[in-house]
Amino acid sequence: MAQTGCSLSVECAHGVRVGRVQFSAPRLFMYNLQEFKQVFDPILKNFLEQRLKKFSSNSSDNFIKDFIEYSEKLTMAGGKRIRPYIAYVMYTANGGKDIQNALKLFVSLEIFHNFALIHDDIMDKQYKRHGVDTIPAFVLKRLKEEKRTGDLENASNAQGILMGDLFFSWAMELFLGNKNFPKENLNSSQNYFYKMVDELCFGQILDIDIATRKKAKKNLIEDKTRLKTSRYTFVRPMQIGAHLANPNSNMDAFCEELGTRLGIAFQMQDDLLDIVGDPKILEKNTLRDIAEHQHTFFTDYVFEKGTKQQKEKLLKYFGKELKDNEQKEVIEIFEKSRAIEEGKLEILKNLNEAKKIIENSLLPEECKEICLILIESMRIRQN
Amino acid sequence: MAQTGCSLSVECAHGVRVGRVQFSAPRLFMYNLQEFKQVFDPILKNFLEQRLKKFSSNSSDNFIKDFIEYSEKLTMAGGKRIRPYIAYVMYTANGGKDIQNALKLFVSLEIFHNFALIHDDIMDKQYKRHGVDTIPAFVLKRLKEEKRTGDLENASNAQGILMGDLFFSWAMELFLGNKNFPKENLNSSQNYFYKMVDELCFGQILDIDIATRKKAKKNLIEDKTRLKTSRYTFVRPMQIGAHLANPNSNMDAFCEELGTRLGIAFQMQDDLLDIVGDPKILEKNTLRDIAEHQHTFFTDYVFEKGTKQQKEKLLKYFGKELKDNEQKEVIEIFEKSRAIEEGKLEILKNLNEAKKIIENSLLPEECKEICLILIESMRIRQN
Repeated sequence: MAQTGCSLSVECAHGVRVGRVQFSAPRLFMYNLQEFKQVFDPILKNFLEQRLKKFSSNSSDNFIKDFIEYSEKLTMAGGKRIRPYIAYVMYTANGGKDIQNALKLFVSLEIFHNFALIHDDIMDKQYKRHGVDTIPAFVLKRLKEEKRTGDLENASNAQGILMGDLFFSWAMELFLGNKNFPKENLNSSQNYFYKMVDELCFGQILDIDIATRKKAKKNLIEDKTRLKTSRYTFVRPMQIGAHLANPNSNMDAFCEELGTRLGIAFQMQDDLLDIVGDPKILEKNTLRDIAEHQHTFFTDYVFEKGTKQQKEKLLKYFGKELKDNEQKEVIEIFEKSRAIEEGKLEILKNLNEAKKIIENSLLPEECKEICLILIESMRIRQN
Repeated sequence: MAQTGCSLSVECAHGVRVGRVQFSAPRLFMYNLQEFKQVFDPILKNFLEQRLKKFSSNSSDNFIKDFIEYSEKLTMAGGKRIRPYIAYVMYTANGGKDIQNALKLFVSLEIFHNFALIHDDIMDKQYKRHGVDTIPAFVLKRLKEEKRTGDLENASNAQGILMGDLFFSWAMELFLGNKNFPKENLNSSQNYFYKMVDELCFGQILDIDIATRKKAKKNLIEDKTRLKTSRYTFVRPMQIGAHLANPNSNMDAFCEELGTRLGIAFQMQDDLLDIVGDPKILEKNTLRDIAEHQHTFFTDYVFEKGTKQQKEKLLKYFGKELKDNEQKEVIEIFEKSRAIEEGKLEILKNLNEAKKIIENSLLPEECKEICLILIESMRIRQN
């Protein structure tokens, strides 16, 4: 990730020794996303260890123990921690000082995200996440090794659903049961947490539904992107952070406007990387959207503006697992129809809009700077 | 359900007009389970309507609207409301007076229970619940009618998982976000709610795991019954009710002891009804435990104490969907091996233990009476 200023390893105001963006004193101390992950991951790991210990020590069975402990391995294997980071940025930008407790609270956002990933991977029949086995894939291998009986695939999915449910429960408990902040701040922040949870579930309902439609109405796709990406990844984490620092924060409209731009760009980048990304860097297979019949900017572009031949060929492959040579053909369709070029321009347009919103805002200067770094990292992101 | 005293329709102390058990004045007013359901269901229905309205009014699509509204129909189609009832009994027994707000809070127990049922039915591949379609069955029919594309079964299950997630979220929010009781009471009660959620998920993890084992260790089965039935259906709802009324309640050991007896009896009754129950009254098919390779008291009894022939025959059918004549054979095995007779005795033994625990307790007399009515209804229950 790009950095401004020089990166130093110092004991900073947040009380954690880590390389950080150096501003001229006496400005706010703010981590960039990479630095944040270094600080945040041990807190996340510690939370999971405490939680999981209770369950695995309650179990006399080796397999159950291993299965439970695996969920920690999966969570720590990857992930950008973008949602807790965004909450942290807005918490700090709104004058929040209790970073240690704020990060402990924002662990709930990452646990919630991992709940969503665990359930998503079951719905999408994904066997890898962050380059390691998903929960059902891990369980299935072990059940087969142990020569268990019955519909083992169904049992493995069931265990995935349940581990997801546990993560969900812990995220809710961690956020709604928190006692480290004034009640007024917590209540205000919690309202946005509730909204985020409902919106993500509803957005995913739309997502699943859209993928079964031969043609998807544009407003359904827009609703899905707004709920599943803009609101979930940006708007709500911003508001959660802002209201935790200041229950009377009046930044809701700003968060919505900025988050919408970032959300559209982020979703389109995701969809673009699914076409042109490097599976090794992504740590997952590409062209999954085609296999899963996902309507995206890029598929819609071809279906609307492609040649008759391009449309017919894409339609033929839409919703199917592709062989290597078919994958090449599909990528060529996206390139030759100019879908990729137009998509890249659209991403850039949204990121530039986001930059303008930040520059014209009343955010503290160092917060503006850290947001612009984040946007730059989104522009060049490869996973 | 059996009733003591005469049943009158009056405006009672709880402020709701309903037939109720008449005690000699000036004793506590307490509903029996049937009466409770009459009072509780409108509150439950109202909560769901408020929640679902938000989502369906947000959607421009008829199918999405119908799908969301269906989850209310499913919830209201059946269910005994035993968990909120038990919380209510212990709340009242511990001096709780704010019945209206307590029932609103205990709606969360029933919403949570419906979350669990929705996810369970997916894991067990059940298409009927309370005599109507489960969520995936409803969605699948509609997707087929609308001639949607792709793996529609997977999409229908995904919608079930997500609707379950939404129910889970609402249950947590309703309980943990409640503001109608003193903070001390709520905090005390919430601790048991957290435990209940975790225990149910972990109990279900054990349940799924046990069903894949050719032989299940006895302690794993006992752990499962303790977590999934004793704790979930009895112990935790009792403690939630008791601590909501009195945060310093010292009834935890009593709840554990009583709940364990009731839980074992309840689970065994469930397993017994799965063999000898009437599918019409149960509103579901019988012999599902055999089909799903579930180790129960009854299967274990045959495998341990049956004749060689009985063991071999049951093993042959264990984990398979049975034809009509095979079903008859299996029922005969359970009868002739004396598994059913011994099971009935065991149920009775546990219910009698529970009665003794109640009779020897310091509960108010009218609470003892209502608990004994509940136990009697458990003894004769047919669904």
